[in-house]
Formats: sequence, structure tokens, C-alpha cells
Amino acid sequence: MRTCLKMLCVFVLSLSLLMCVRATRKEAVSEIDPGFCIHCHQGVTPGLFQSWVESKHAKNGVHCMTCHIDHQVASDQKSMIYPEKCGECHRKQLEEFRKSRHSIAFDRMRIQGEYLGIPQEIRSAFCERCHSIQQRCNSCHNSHRFSLKEARAPDACGSCHLGPDHPHKEMYETSLHGTIYKVTQNPERAPRCVTCHMPGGTHDTSFGIARGPAGTRPEVVDFRETPISKEEEQRRREEMLGVCTKCHSRRFAQEQLENADRVKEAGFELMERAKAPIQEIEREGLLYPSLAERLPHPTEGRSLVLADPQLYVGTSYVERLFFSMFKFHSIRVWKSGYHFSPSYTHGYGWTEMQLDLIDIKEEANRLKEIFKDMKK
Amino acid sequence: MRTCLKMLCVFVLSLSLLMCVRATRKEAVSEIDPGFCIHCHQGVTPGLFQSWVESKHAKNGVHCMTCHIDHQVASDQKSMIYPEKCGECHRKQLEEFRKSRHSIAFDRMRIQGEYLGIPQEIRSAFCERCHSIQQRCNSCHNSHRFSLKEARAPDACGSCHLGPDHPHKEMYETSLHGTIYKVTQNPERAPRCVTCHMPGGTHDTSFGIARGPAGTRPEVVDFRETPISKEEEQRRREEMLGVCTKCHSRRFAQEQLENADRVKEAGFELMERAKAPIQEIEREGLLYPSLAERLPHPTEGRSLVLADPQLYVGTSYVERLFFSMFKFHSIRVWKSGYHFSPSYTHGYGWTEMQLDLIDIKEEANRLKEIFKDMKK
Amino acid sequence: MRTCLKMLCVFVLSLSLLMCVRATRKEAVSEIDPGFCIHCHQGVTPGLFQSWVESKHAKNGVHCMTCHIDHQVASDQKSMIYPEKCGECHRKQLEEFRKSRHSIAFDRMRIQGEYLGIPQEIRSAFCERCHSIQQRCNSCHNSHRFSLKEARAPDACGSCHLGPDHPHKEMYETSLHGTIYKVTQNPERAPRCVTCHMPGGTHDTSFGIARGPAGTRPEVVDFRETPISKEEEQRRREEMLGVCTKCHSRRFAQEQLENADRVKEAGFELMERAKAPIQEIEREGLLYPSLAERLPHPTEGRSLVLADPQLYVGTSYVERLFFSMFKFHSIRVWKSGYHFSPSYTHGYGWTEMQLDLIDIKEEANRLKEIFKDMKK
Repeated sequence: MRTCLKMLCVFVLSLSLLMCVRATRKEAVSEIDPGFCIHCHQGVTPGLFQSWVESKHAKNGVHCMTCHIDHQVASDQKSMIYPEKCGECHRKQLEEFRKSRHSIAFDRMRIQGEYLGIPQEIRSAFCERCHSIQQRCNSCHNSHRFSLKEARAPDACGSCHLGPDHPHKEMYETSLHGTIYKVTQNPERAPRCVTCHMPGGTHDTSFGIARGPAGTRPEVVDFRETPISKEEEQRRREEMLGVCTKCHSRRFAQEQLENADRVKEAGFELMERAKAPIQEIEREGLLYPSLAERLPHPTEGRSLVLADPQLYVGTSYVERLFFSMFKFHSIRVWKSGYHFSPSYTHGYGWTEMQLDLIDIKEEANRLKEIFKDMKK
Repeated sequence: MRTCLKMLCVFVLSLSLLMCVRATRKEAVSEIDPGFCIHCHQGVTPGLFQSWVESKHAKNGVHCMTCHIDHQVASDQKSMIYPEKCGECHRKQLEEFRKSRHSIAFDRMRIQGEYLGIPQEIRSAFCERCHSIQQRCNSCHNSHRFSLKEARAPDACGSCHLGPDHPHKEMYETSLHGTIYKVTQNPERAPRCVTCHMPGGTHDTSFGIARGPAGTRPEVVDFRETPISKEEEQRRREEMLGVCTKCHSRRFAQEQLENADRVKEAGFELMERAKAPIQEIEREGLLYPSLAERLPHPTEGRSLVLADPQLYVGTSYVERLFFSMFKFHSIRVWKSGYHFSPSYTHGYGWTEMQLDLIDIKEEANRLKEIFKDMKK
Repeated sequence: MRTCLKMLCVFVLSLSLLMCVRATRKEAVSEIDPGFCIHCHQGVTPGLFQSWVESKHAKNGVHCMTCHIDHQVASDQKSMIYPEKCGECHRKQLEEFRKSRHSIAFDRMRIQGEYLGIPQEIRSAFCERCHSIQQRCNSCHNSHRFSLKEARAPDACGSCHLGPDHPHKEMYETSLHGTIYKVTQNPERAPRCVTCHMPGGTHDTSFGIARGPAGTRPEVVDFRETPISKEEEQRRREEMLGVCTKCHSRRFAQEQLENADRVKEAGFELMERAKAPIQEIEREGLLYPSLAERLPHPTEGRSLVLADPQLYVGTSYVERLFFSMFKFHSIRVWKSGYHFSPSYTHGYGWTEMQLDLIDIKEEANRLKEIFKDMKK
């Protein structure tokens, strides 16, 4: 009986330690051992284990088996934990997440021509690495530490939102917002990505965005690319202004966003001017390879696709020039209009679009003047 | 009488608090309320207000109306504060600033062909965002915190001095100077931009620069682009060496700067080699569109402009190739010569210039061989 | 006698101070003065001196003359300290260093065609700045602080391993590894360069690398570019897996590395598809300038060189297109396969290679269709 009592005391004491102690020291690890997994994994994956030890999960009794169920399930699922599992505790976040484009990212990827046209190893190394956000909260909440500091850092968003076709990270970092945040690391001093796109912690990242999201079309659409009404557009602009006016006057903020609207229009107008000569070339049968000579577009067939969902494989040279213009340069112009990055709007964007326009006109002229003559 | 005395005590106590307390806690705000503005702005622009609360200005009794005069003036001026206003207290800095190119940045922008040729929305989103430094100290001293830490950070300079046509930030960050500073954050360990360009806190940023500043011409000029004497050139080099020798031997520093001089010459020499074939093409009437067929250059008329102030809109393809060479690549070669960035000198610079030269020669050859024949 | 005793006490006390005191305050400097050099250099190169004062060297009695011998030797050697000197104390590190490609970096540079074909000022500003790692430990262990924090930072490696032709730094920074490290600055949370390439502090940086190192050839070679056996290749993969499995399951890590192997193969296969049309063009005598008309390749003579050691000066346009493809784009595909950077694998790599392929086919077609006709 006394032994039982003693053991109970030890058990209660251990439990208290498990709940209370901020277990950051490695020596403290054994005291918070929550299950069978640890005996092995402390040795075979020490980094993973240490991350969990330092997590809020560990402090709140959320351990390996809470999420991974058991060794067999973990193995079968390749250790994947789906958002539904996280949502058992984090319901509000899951519901918000489901309203965002993040929640359909993998599905949309799989029907895109770009994805369909590349080998599986490139899909794994590129597309799926980011689009899997649909299936895993740990795209942002890095395993197994699940640190809010990590998830809220601009670099967390920037691990996917970067690169030639959507340099959100680079545009932010080259804006005054990004510059001041980088120096101060103080989110009260300058906004991070989450300040404007996830205010109040909402996981509906379509908050306040009324001009996208696809990025390669001028229409205003929702996260499923359905056009939205003028009223809805205005409602979203107001949402965003509500964030801006924490630091800026409403007049200033409105002026800036409306200027960005005009930058977007100017960019799309420039792109339209580049389409006409290419369409003419195609009508005159001067594309090489012609639409008939090449593999059909996976979703658009044998039509001339300029801008989204245009592909970059096996097209003619003049189409490829347009691809760079729309996919890389036009997006920099208008997206950095809203992200206030002068170098991306102009240097990496507008200037490049103007150079593209020269290249396209030159190529169209050449095809008309030379190849046409030769065909005679 | 005793009430008066009591009130005086309270007033003196409040004043002491206003002057002495490091008012970083938000609760302390009402104690340092300096004027009428705060009653609204604490609520409508809380971020802006909080930045001011944490500023040295707040601690020294410089409040909203010290700079903005009153609500009407603030509204009329769109809250702009001109350097002359700041100079009422910061006279030395204003006088030094007036000797620098920063102080004529907006005026020079407005007479440049590049500026004249783009829509107002792009001007607002790009050119004016940086060139407005002529009119506002808060380009570097970010409102309303006016933190020296922020102003002295390489990223403060880098919020304008970056991008394809003047990647000073990128060159610094990829130099050993920038690398060591990034890791240590210690300006005694490695120089920041201000270490070499604003030593001792001078706001004359032309300090020590004897090879520019325009960047696209080989001549040695002052900040108004007037050529300077050999003696003045030597005086400036000595200024810069005075900074280098804090960490390096004079022999080493001199060797490095003289090597950069030679790198600059090699870059300009390569650019000259690319001009000849284009000038020949133009003389032979093979440019498309020809100088006669296109809009005249806003400042140079219908002449062939190669290098500064060459434009990138509506020119021929061969001129556009040269534009990339001079505007983006040549500047990386020589400016990173002085900023000691191997990858920008060579990879992003010299290599690209050599590739440009191949492209230009090929295009010139093509125009001569093919189009000439066709004209016959 | 008593005076002697007193002086001895003072001497012992001073020595204790020299050995024990963490001499970071500038006032403490004179107490640890170790030699004659300081009387001048404290004044003429204060930054350099202060760095040494804060170093472990200073605390352990390693002073100017321990490494620089005397003023004459220092002057004759331009203050260079060769690895052999450092190895007198740091023997293990020197021996490991000698097994790495770092130890032959300068020798290999000097026989490369690229180096032979550029002016000395560019060599000094670019090639030699990094390749001199063969001759100096302070490429990573920055003088005169020799801080481990600085040497182990990803930016230390990244001061050379960056740029268009080997963007290791950029690939790491855009991977999830680099992102988490940047936010946490915690090497237990995410790997730095040294975690995988110098585990346990080994200075043999060829650890675990079985797929290079040259980077522009598909063969698996050692650091002297001698092909290695399948067994050796497998041994190195196991070395690397030993690092990965600290945080990841073996299955996951193996899958990731094997996917990278396939990404590499896909990249090289794409490059091969671009070679064929160029070789055909050359056989038909359509290269301009032809191999006979140009300077011979410094090491390969008058043969058509596609991929390593291809040069970028004075070649034909179609070869120059291939140069960009192999030198810049193919390397991004496969190297970021192993560094897990989606944007470099695809956006900056695979996409660019596909665009290159269009450009090359177009140019080859043009040369065949047009110039051939003209030659008739």
C-alpha cells in the first residue's frame, strides 16, 4: 500500500514536471518522456526529438502518438499529418485555412499544364514541395518545434513565395516595409507578410486581396478564380485599408493602393501590345514549330496560348519571348506595385517588359520580312 | 494658494516624467502627451504614434506640431516635412547634405529622358520613391521613430541603392565586408555603407568618391557631373584611404583601389568595342526602327544614343542589346570593383558583358549580311 | 631585493591578467600588449588591432610575431600567412584541409581557360579572391578575430560559393533548411553549410559528396576529378545519410537524395539534347565566327567545346546560348536538387534550360535555313 502511495507520488510529481518545467535543457528530456517512441528516436533522430522537446506541444502533453497514432500508421503515412488532424485541436485555424487558396493548392497544381509537362523528379523537387501546403500545416509550422516565431517570420512565407515567377519575398525585402522590419525585427515598427495577409492571426490568407490571386490575368477573382463583384472588391480594399491605417493616413494609403491599381493596368496594357504581332505571325503561318507540328497543350489543345496557362516547352521562339514577359516580368510590375518595391516594379519589371516588347516586335518583323520571302 | 502649489508640483513632476522616463511602455503614453493631435492619432494611427513615443524626439519634447505646425498645414503638405525644417535643429547635417548628390536627386530625375518616357503611375511607384530623398530626411531616418540604428543599417541605404542598374546593396552584401558585418552586426569588425561613405557622420555622401558618381561614364566628375581636377581626384582617394587604413595596410588598400581603377577601365573599354558595330549599322541605314521612324529622344533628339542617357523604349534590337550591356552589366563590373564583390565583378558583370558583345556582333553581322541583301 | 619581489609580483599579476581577463574593453588593451608591433599598429590600424584583442589568439598569447615572424617578413609576404604556418598549432585541421578541393583551388584555377582568357585586374578582383583559399586559412577564419562564429556562418561559405555559376548560398537560403536557420540562428534546429559538409568540424569539405565536385559533368569524381568506384560512391552517400538522419527518417532522406540523383540526370539529358543541333551546325560550316577564324581555346585548341571547359569570349551566338545553359542554368537544376531549393531547381534552372533549348533550336534552324541558302 505504502509502495503504491509512493509510486503515485512519483507519478504525480513526474506529471507536474511534464506540465510545468520549461524543458529546454537536454538533461531534462527523460523527465518528460511521453511514450514508447522516444526510447529509440532520442537516439536515431535526435534533432527531431530535441525540436519537439522545446515545443509548446511537449509542454502541453501533445506527444508523438497524439498526432502519429502509432508506429504502423506513421510508417504507412510516411509521417504525414493532415490538416484535419491538426484541426482536432486547432479548429478555428482549420476553418479559416479552408477559405484560402492554400487549401486547394495541391488540387489546382495537378491540373495545370506546366505540372503535366515536366518529369516526376522535377515535380517532387519543385511543384509538390510548395503546393503540398494543402495537405500539411507544417509547411509553415515547421516540424517538430511548431514555433510561432518561425511561422510568422517573412522567411516562412518566403520559402514558397519567391523566385522568378512570384518573387513576393524579394519584393517585400526590397520595400521600405521589409527593410525596416529586417533591421528592427519589430513587427510593431514595420509589417511582415502576416501583418497584412493574416491580421489577427486569420488563416484565411485571401484577406484584403482583391486583385488576384492568379496573378497572370487582369480580372478580379476570388481564391477559386471566380470573378467577384464590385462590392466585394470594395469590401476587400476596405479590409486592407484597415491594416494600412494603423501606421498611415487613410488618404496616403488609399493613394498608394490606387496607384498600384494603375500600375497593374499599365503592365497588362503593355502585355496586350505584345500579343498582337504574335497573333498575326500565327495567322500567317510563320510560327516554328507551328501549332500543328508540336504536341498539343495539355489543357488548351492546338490553340495559341499567350499568358496563363501558357507553357515554356517546345514552343516557338517568339512565344517563348512572350512567356518571359508575362510569367516573370509582368508579374513583377504589378505585384510589386502592391508591395511597394521600386526596383521590382521598374528595374526587374517595367524595364524588362519594354525590352521584351522590342525583342518580340523585332522577331515578328524578322519572321514576316525574311521567312515570308523565303516561302515564296 | 495651496491648490496652486499642489498643481505646480504635479506639473513639475509631469514635466520631469516627460523629460526623464524612457517611455517605451504603452501605458506610459498619456503621461507624455504633448499636444492635441494625440487624442485622435493614438487611436487612428497607433503604429505611427507608438514609433514617435519610442523616439528621441518624444524624449526631448519634439512633438507633432514642432514639425507639422498644425493640422491644416500637415494636411496641405500631405504630412511632408522638408529638410529645411529638420535643419532648424540639425543644421550641420543639412549643410553637409546640401553638398551631396542626394540634395539634387529629384531635380535631376525630372530632366532625365528615362523619367520623361514612362507613365506617372510607374514614376510614382519607382523613380519618385527614391529620388524624393532631396525633399525628405525620412528616406533614411524612417518616420516617426527616427532611429539611428535604422538609418545606419546597410539596408537603409540599400532600400534605394539596389536593383539591376545600381546593385550597391547586392555588391556590398556579396563582399567580404558585407558578409562579416552581416554575421557580426558589429561596425567595428567590418564596414557598413556609412563607414566609408559617411565617416564621422558626415551627410556629404560624396566623401571619398572620385570616380563617379553617374556611373555610366568613364570621366571623373563631382556630384553635379562637372569634371574634377587630378588634384581633387587625388584628394578624394586620400580621404577614402584614410578610412581603409583603419583596418588594412596602406599598401594593400592602395593596391585594391588601383586594381578597381583598372577594372573600371577594362569595363569601359569593352563597352567601346560594342559601340563600333552599332554605329556602323546606323550609318548604313539598317536600324529598325530607324532614328527617323521613331519618337525623338526627349533630350538628345534624333541622334544615336549609346550609353547614358540611352533609353530602353522603342529602340532597335541591337541598341537594346547595348542598353543591357551598359545599364546593367558594365555598372556591375566597375562598381563592384570598388565594392570588392567577386561575383558581381565577374559573374554578373564581366561575363555578361562578353556575352553581350557576342550578341551585338552577331546581330550586327546578321543585319549587314541579310537585311542588306534584301534591300537590294 | 624587496623591489625585485615587488616587480615580480607586478609581472605575475600582469601575466595573469594577460591570460585570464576577457579583454574586450578598449581600455584593457595596454595590459595585454604582446610585442613591439602594437605601439604603432594600435594607432595606424586600430580596427585590425581591436579584432586581434578580442580573439582567442590574444587570450592564448598568440601575437603578431607568432604568425608574422617580424616586420620584414610580414612586409615581404604582404602579410600573407600560409596554411602551413597555421598548421603548426592546428595540425588536424591542416591535414583534413589537404584532402579537400580547397587545397588545390589556386593551382586548378591557373590552368583553366576561363582564367587564362581574362585581364589580370579581373583575375585579381574575381578568380584569385576566392581561389586563394588554397593559400590562406583566413578566407573563412577572418583576420584578425578568427571567430568560430564567423567561420561557421553560412555567409562565410557563401562569400565564395555564390553567384550565377555556383549559387550554393542562394540555393541554401531559399531551401527550408536555410529559411529555418535564418529565423532561428540555431544550428540544432536547421543545418548550416558546415553541418552537412564539415560534420564534427572536419576540414575535408569533400565529406559526403559523391556527385561532383566539378559540377558541369555527369560523372562521379573525387576532388581531383578522378572517377570514383560504385563502392566509394555508396560509402559517401552513407556518410551524408548519417547527417540527414539526425533529423529525418532514413527512408525520407534516402528518397530525397535519390530524387536529386534523378533531377541531375534529367538536367544533363536536357543539356545533351541541346548539343546535337550545335554540333550539326558546326559540321555544316555555319558557325560564325568559325573555329578556324577565332583564337584557339587555351587548353582544347580548335575543337568545338560544349560544356566544361567551354569559354564565353569570342564564340558564336549559338555556342554562347549553350554556355548560359550549361554554366548557369544546368548547374542550378541539379545542385539545388541536392540543396532542396524549389525555386532554383525549377524557376531559375529547369525553366531556363527549356527556354535555352528553344533559343538554340531556333538559332540552329535559322542558320540552316537562311545562311545556308545565302551561301548557295
